[in-house]
Amino acid sequence: MPESAPGHMSPEEFRRQGHAAIDWIADYWAALDDLPVRSQVAPGEVAALMPASAPETGEPFDALLADLDRVVVPGLTHWQHPRFFAYFPANSSPAAILGDLLSSGIGAQGMIWATSPAVTEVEQVVLDWLADALGLPAAFRSDGPGGGVIQDTASTATLTALLAALHRASAGDVRRRGAGHEQWTVYGSTQAHSSLVKAAMMAGLGEESVRAVAVDPATQAMDVAALREAVDADVAAGRRPVMVHVACGSTSTGATDDVAAVVGLARAHDDLWVHVDGAWAGVAAVCPELRGHLRGVEDADSFVTNPHKWLLTTFDCSTFWVRDRAALTGALTILPEYLRNAATESGAVVDYRDWHPQLGRRFRSLKLWAVLRTYGLEGLRAHVRSGVALARRVAAHVAADDRFELVTQPSLSLVVLRVRAGDEQTLAAMEAVNASGEAYLSHTTVEGRAAIRVAVGSWRTTEADVDRTWRALQDAVSAQA
Amino acid sequence: MPESAPGHMSPEEFRRQGHAAIDWIADYWAALDDLPVRSQVAPGEVAALMPASAPETGEPFDALLADLDRVVVPGLTHWQHPRFFAYFPANSSPAAILGDLLSSGIGAQGMIWATSPAVTEVEQVVLDWLADALGLPAAFRSDGPGGGVIQDTASTATLTALLAALHRASAGDVRRRGAGHEQWTVYGSTQAHSSLVKAAMMAGLGEESVRAVAVDPATQAMDVAALREAVDADVAAGRRPVMVHVACGSTSTGATDDVAAVVGLARAHDDLWVHVDGAWAGVAAVCPELRGHLRGVEDADSFVTNPHKWLLTTFDCSTFWVRDRAALTGALTILPEYLRNAATESGAVVDYRDWHPQLGRRFRSLKLWAVLRTYGLEGLRAHVRSGVALARRVAAHVAADDRFELVTQPSLSLVVLRVRAGDEQTLAAMEAVNASGEAYLSHTTVEGRAAIRVAVGSWRTTEADVDRTWRALQDAVSAQA
Ligand SMILES: Cc1ncc(COP(=O)(O)O)c(C=O)c1O
Ligand SMILES: Cc1ncc(COP(=O)(O)O)c(C=O)c1O
Repeated sequence: MPESAPGHMSPEEFRRQGHAAIDWIADYWAALDDLPVRSQVAPGEVAALMPASAPETGEPFDALLADLDRVVVPGLTHWQHPRFFAYFPANSSPAAILGDLLSSGIGAQGMIWATSPAVTEVEQVVLDWLADALGLPAAFRSDGPGGGVIQDTASTATLTALLAALHRASAGDVRRRGAGHEQWTVYGSTQAHSSLVKAAMMAGLGEESVRAVAVDPATQAMDVAALREAVDADVAAGRRPVMVHVACGSTSTGATDDVAAVVGLARAHDDLWVHVDGAWAGVAAVCPELRGHLRGVEDADSFVTNPHKWLLTTFDCSTFWVRDRAALTGALTILPEYLRNAATESGAVVDYRDWHPQLGRRFRSLKLWAVLRTYGLEGLRAHVRSGVALARRVAAHVAADDRFELVTQPSLSLVVLRVRAGDEQTLAAMEAVNASGEAYLSHTTVEGRAAIRVAVGSWRTTEADVDRTWRALQDAVSAQA
Repeated sequence: MPESAPGHMSPEEFRRQGHAAIDWIADYWAALDDLPVRSQVAPGEVAALMPASAPETGEPFDALLADLDRVVVPGLTHWQHPRFFAYFPANSSPAAILGDLLSSGIGAQGMIWATSPAVTEVEQVVLDWLADALGLPAAFRSDGPGGGVIQDTASTATLTALLAALHRASAGDVRRRGAGHEQWTVYGSTQAHSSLVKAAMMAGLGEESVRAVAVDPATQAMDVAALREAVDADVAAGRRPVMVHVACGSTSTGATDDVAAVVGLARAHDDLWVHVDGAWAGVAAVCPELRGHLRGVEDADSFVTNPHKWLLTTFDCSTFWVRDRAALTGALTILPEYLRNAATESGAVVDYRDWHPQLGRRFRSLKLWAVLRTYGLEGLRAHVRSGVALARRVAAHVAADDRFELVTQPSLSLVVLRVRAGDEQTLAAMEAVNASGEAYLSHTTVEGRAAIRVAVGSWRTTEADVDRTWRALQDAVSAQA
């Protein structure tokens, strides 16, 4: 297309607008502290600010930047705000943003090694780096029978793990003839993330195949004796247990199942795949003193953790490792003629399209590489430790005000608390803080009772932010009296 | 984390490095023309240039930029090169890159409307814009019973379509009890993209559930009479036809199945879902004169096309529409306590996490919005028409040299040709061009014979690039004599 074609940005214009976009981001971050964390718009308000159809003629890029401020920003709940404590953090860091920007500029599509060798090899090396940094076993490294891959999300990783588990347990029959020839069963605690049930639904097993195993009421961790009973009962009934989901840092309270105990149990059952979901808490293992929750992972079949949550790597970047990549690629490989090539046939390379549901893939490892290099392991440890310390500060605040109580012991950077007066007061206090825009919190239920989650983890959050949020909660409760 | 923490980039440093990253991209693009299109590295060469572990201490971002040139660029096959004609284009444009950069900076996660209303509403509006621009029916718009969503890839969209189809046909039974209670069957032509079989494998139906319907040897389009026979035979045998995949622009030759005829046939069968795969060719419909291949799509159940291929929107951005969103969300919805909120309960909003396998999602519509606005429909039409014109130029070259022949009629911007002397010569000529680095082509087989695909579509490609590539092919064949 000639450079004079409609809409085309010249190289000079790209530089100018690119610098402006970078500056827009820096300005947005600088302004965050004064913005309400939760968006105040009602349904339809953002859409109503946009024209009914695409413009016929191109507009200067500045028009889009102006609309970001006018249309978009009021409609955002600011995930990068220093007082965003809801769900789990989804950190975007300067290094990751620039790494991802470079990936967009390069625009390589790494579906197979041959379509851009660097996309595959940088990913392999960076996942080996991260495996080592987290203290994962050598079996998960790319130089053994296993290896790591970047998935978009932990949900996809869990689906992928289930497909690999079915492939191994059925010796390929599920791939060929479908999942309906056995009554497969899948296990997770009542606290397992909902992506487990979604994976079972998508893989053709159905919701009813998932057993929600009871947890210890105090710790919210899976009751491994109950797991054993459930597995035994299914086997006795002629069903085929295929995968156990082990939560290392549950969504609700950060509860940690006992990986080693589950692995021990699974060993007694041929082909029972153990998938460890450390979507949020897994990355804490960059700190040697914060690895206790992963004890036993060295014998698991697969492990997922999301650098896009707490490890400063802009969404999406979910890192997934398996001990035996043959089960994975066996479940997912397809080689149409147009992708045949000498490198694949030599067996000397990895084709990542066989490691996940998608075919096309972007150069995601660039952003993770940028994070690992720019922060260094030292910087990442400092970041994680700061989140843990701030969570302790929240817990201390709770302990010092007897109108509140901790619901569970703080887990890494997550604190779960409630207002002693009751569920209604708990939810009302949270809603008051959220509505004020001062901070943003989310809720859960624990043993049937409402609770507030305070998930620390943004690199922007300071002690002052924690204290200010705490005061807002206190004020909300005072106002209820 | 205090700004003095290890690895932290100050706002000034972010601006400086951000401008440098933008400039790196502009410089990379300017240099592309002189780089070999296909990477020349051997397996392991890129990895060997990287250290064995992550650095303990953070490095300046400049070190990463330097390594891009040293480690990464030689390992890239340059998808943004003006003479990249392999597979299909995966265009990255200045507007899309900056739109995506802003999305990284904002760092919002739009799993549900409530977690950032603008992420959902901008996506709805932009997909309505694009539906109108492509001439799609009103039923696919968000203000009716259907709607559009951005998926990462067409592979995921096809899996999602299949899950929705199974949900509708089983009245929810597949979701509850799994796919094994009926013998589901799925249809596509022998030219259907491999993601169809992969979807059937992942959904628990198995490869054997997919019927590869014969094609017309001349057009490579699905033989609809053969489809009817296959469906009737399966019904007679007690099986349950659930989905037909219709290729509008097949991967191999750009063949177009007759959507209207397939829809007519499906009408006679309750609940036979028609999924139209226009992954590559669908976006051509921005030009009113290039919509013929989609005739009938107005009655299909779902449609996917990839702006990340030929519509200038940096990977990943696959746009997917359904006529009836209830089937989709019925198949995929799960509402754990922590995601309950007033907006969802009011029914006034869309929660996109129920529209695809993943939970978390980034603000992908920003890059598509940036493309639609910066180019305007006029600019997009000019881009598509330029690709079609350049393909005609390739076809004219083929016609003028009787050592070559067209294998099929050119389809939009795709030309499939061969060396008359035979398969060996065809593949050797392609390999010679690819090895020289002058241009990059890919191959296929058509009716059992080898062929070369020339897929035009980069906005950087000029007539001179086409001519130069053609001369390289001619030279390769001359050298064979
Ligand atoms: C423990 C756990 N697993 C899985 C997920 C799903 O993450 P994703 O959005 O990456 O699929 C979450 C999300 O918060 C989670 O907390
Ligand atoms: C017709 C067709 N459908 C689907 C796909 C898969 O695309 P994606 O990589 O977006 O999954 C392709 C890829 O080239 C294609 O050509």
